[in-house]
Amino acid sequence: MRITAYALQRATKMVDKYALYVPKTGSFPKGFQVASLASGVKKNGNLDLGIIVNTNKSRLSSAAAVFTTNKFKAAPVLTSKEVLDVTGGVGVNAIVVNSGCANSVTGEIGMKDAQDMVGLVNKQLNSKNSTLVMSTGVIGQRLQMDKISKGINNIFAEKKFGTDFNSWLNIAKSINTTDTFPKLITSKFKLPNGAEYTLTGMAKGAGMICPNMATLLGFIVTDLPIESNTLQNMLRYATSRSFNCISVDGDMSTNDTICMIANGAVETSEISEQSEEFKRVQGQVTEFAQKLAQLVVRDGEGSTKFVTVNVKNALNFGDAKIIAETISNSMLVKTALYGQDANWGRILCAIGYAKLDNLKSLNVDKINVSFIATDNSEPRELKLIVNGVPQLEIDEARASEILALNDLEVLVNLGTGTEEAQFWTCDLSHEYVTINGDYRS
Amino acid sequence: MRITAYALQRATKMVDKYALYVPKTGSFPKGFQVASLASGVKKNGNLDLGIIVNTNKSRLSSAAAVFTTNKFKAAPVLTSKEVLDVTGGVGVNAIVVNSGCANSVTGEIGMKDAQDMVGLVNKQLNSKNSTLVMSTGVIGQRLQMDKISKGINNIFAEKKFGTDFNSWLNIAKSINTTDTFPKLITSKFKLPNGAEYTLTGMAKGAGMICPNMATLLGFIVTDLPIESNTLQNMLRYATSRSFNCISVDGDMSTNDTICMIANGAVETSEISEQSEEFKRVQGQVTEFAQKLAQLVVRDGEGSTKFVTVNVKNALNFGDAKIIAETISNSMLVKTALYGQDANWGRILCAIGYAKLDNLKSLNVDKINVSFIATDNSEPRELKLIVNGVPQLEIDEARASEILALNDLEVLVNLGTGTEEAQFWTCDLSHEYVTINGDYRS
Repeated sequence: MRITAYALQRATKMVDKYALYVPKTGSFPKGFQVASLASGVKKNGNLDLGIIVNTNKSRLSSAAAVFTTNKFKAAPVLTSKEVLDVTGGVGVNAIVVNSGCANSVTGEIGMKDAQDMVGLVNKQLNSKNSTLVMSTGVIGQRLQMDKISKGINNIFAEKKFGTDFNSWLNIAKSINTTDTFPKLITSKFKLPNGAEYTLTGMAKGAGMICPNMATLLGFIVTDLPIESNTLQNMLRYATSRSFNCISVDGDMSTNDTICMIANGAVETSEISEQSEEFKRVQGQVTEFAQKLAQLVVRDGEGSTKFVTVNVKNALNFGDAKIIAETISNSMLVKTALYGQDANWGRILCAIGYAKLDNLKSLNVDKINVSFIATDNSEPRELKLIVNGVPQLEIDEARASEILALNDLEVLVNLGTGTEEAQFWTCDLSHEYVTINGDYRS
Repeated sequence: MRITAYALQRATKMVDKYALYVPKTGSFPKGFQVASLASGVKKNGNLDLGIIVNTNKSRLSSAAAVFTTNKFKAAPVLTSKEVLDVTGGVGVNAIVVNSGCANSVTGEIGMKDAQDMVGLVNKQLNSKNSTLVMSTGVIGQRLQMDKISKGINNIFAEKKFGTDFNSWLNIAKSINTTDTFPKLITSKFKLPNGAEYTLTGMAKGAGMICPNMATLLGFIVTDLPIESNTLQNMLRYATSRSFNCISVDGDMSTNDTICMIANGAVETSEISEQSEEFKRVQGQVTEFAQKLAQLVVRDGEGSTKFVTVNVKNALNFGDAKIIAETISNSMLVKTALYGQDANWGRILCAIGYAKLDNLKSLNVDKINVSFIATDNSEPRELKLIVNGVPQLEIDEARASEILALNDLEVLVNLGTGTEEAQFWTCDLSHEYVTINGDYRS
């Protein structure tokens, strides 16, 4: 049972993720207030209901969302989609979210419950079509609407909204299910025209809670004014390079939603695709979304490693991405990473069965594969395959050092073009099997 | 650590696969001889080299093969493919196979080694282009050709060929790597015209041996005369419904090969696509290939369960198959099966993200999902979803009974057509992670 020794070895090095990844302070976008409470849907009494409200009245807000492509879409997904369709994303001022019950595969009654959640918040805001809804947790169970209704009304009646750090941390906690730490990040940016704006993001991880499934929820709010169609395109671009580039187990839930609200509380001209600042803001939003998405991988169930799969010099972005994705989802690659095994054969094998758009993206004589250390130790690069030729005399001691790192990179240089894509993945551990094999309770 | 209790519970029920799945006797197709020995490539001294030879001279044999679609094809795959291209599958009389080294990602020298293996056998048979070659084992290492050459020559010089049960069992053993039992099956069939023929098959499992990858090898030989193009089409049809319908971990190797030789030793008219018996023989070969492929799943690394995923009443075969495949490959479904969890949510979720050709294949209001007991206990069917509605009041006691079975079926009735497809999968266990996470040694 050599694996036991590894497990022990790893356990002693196990990082305190809460200490490492949860901020202690932060400043947040102007004009947003947040509130959360324990409605009682979660039996353990943890926070399970949150509301974000935009209070800025200087201009109409813009909202956008990217939803799961799963054919079984949960009621809150369909409800939020309708709100965005009706409003074109203009004047949406609130998000209400609950955890503990996903309101998925709940039929017509589930649709009514999701619409009622939205309706209760709209009523408090004295407006129509101004609220998005998200849910995560157990599927196939009806929402306990008595608890949810009471919770929503209490939040408004008791004026639980705040703008301080703890209010934001608590709402990040309220969307968690099996997450081991709340995922909250916030950053300030300055544009060349002098305008300063803030992005704040929250996410819940690909944690599958009994009896259930992975759900990925992400929220980004900003006080920058962004035109609503531009916001939708920007979010789609950012998501395709962030939340759609992470792999915990390759499963996709009925509830996955990433949404964004820009309230325009910062006094500067609205960003549209014609704006001089557009590319810069899009880049900033994308990088920010990547940081948020990476936190989800860091909290991957049972994971001991955070691995960046970097595919470079590809013929096109799509094929670079599918190769990065195929490596990231391979159970053989994931278990080799867990076992700290420099197994280039499994990486090559996954590349070989990636479903490419263009067969010319892959030239077996041009491919290079390396492990990259991310802790500034030298040599940074450990070459496994050079121009298609496996390096049989690799430095095993250095390989062990790199593979023992909590963070590392797999670099694939295809040598067939100039495009690139990244994916972020984690290893597949005994703990993953334990968490997901455990009987519903 | 509730999982420990499960593990114990399961361990006490762990079946003796060798006793259950390895035959004790058998009769084999006329005109084939087999031999095997330990060449020394496998360090543990186990059998690692085998040769099948057709000695029937009454007519020219037909050969066919289906190869991996991985873009990195191993040297033996490219070599065998060339033999079939040159001969059109006519007059191929031998298969030489080694285990312990996959001769994959070995460049030009690997191609020469594979061709030399073929050449050595051809020389003994005094013919050209008459031998196929297969290899399985470690990748990126050169074949020890001194050992292989000596082994091939010894087999012929010392007349090691036999036709008895033990000779066949031993060659089945000689292709194993991490397999826990040899996979050998043989069956007799009678055609309406009175002709009797035999199918014998061998396979090696999707076991990944250090430092390496899954390789699936399968051989079927028969004494029925089958025209070579017909044989190729028949094998392709059978493979698409057997070896391409099994899932251990969803990875596909550089060496995967299924081949078939029909030597025509039975005196009856040759089967072609115009023959009256064609459909019947194709059905028999397909069913036989399914039985052989199922043995690979039964030996899936660390698996404790054999699960048939049966998708019925689909609009088309392709979409039925992709749904069966997506369920079978889902890590969440596999861990739920390991944990004996009646988690219909994960099954539904996988169905929802299957990449369908025709969106009309799936109607969320028509779908039915059940677990089916395969041990004749009643009620056989445990309905989880009926016409899109999850059954919230399922009989948990009965669910536990069915999920505790070593064999069970997941039945998906799409209700959108009349086509069907089956996939065979196994669960994902702690043992899988241990086997595949273990460091190369």
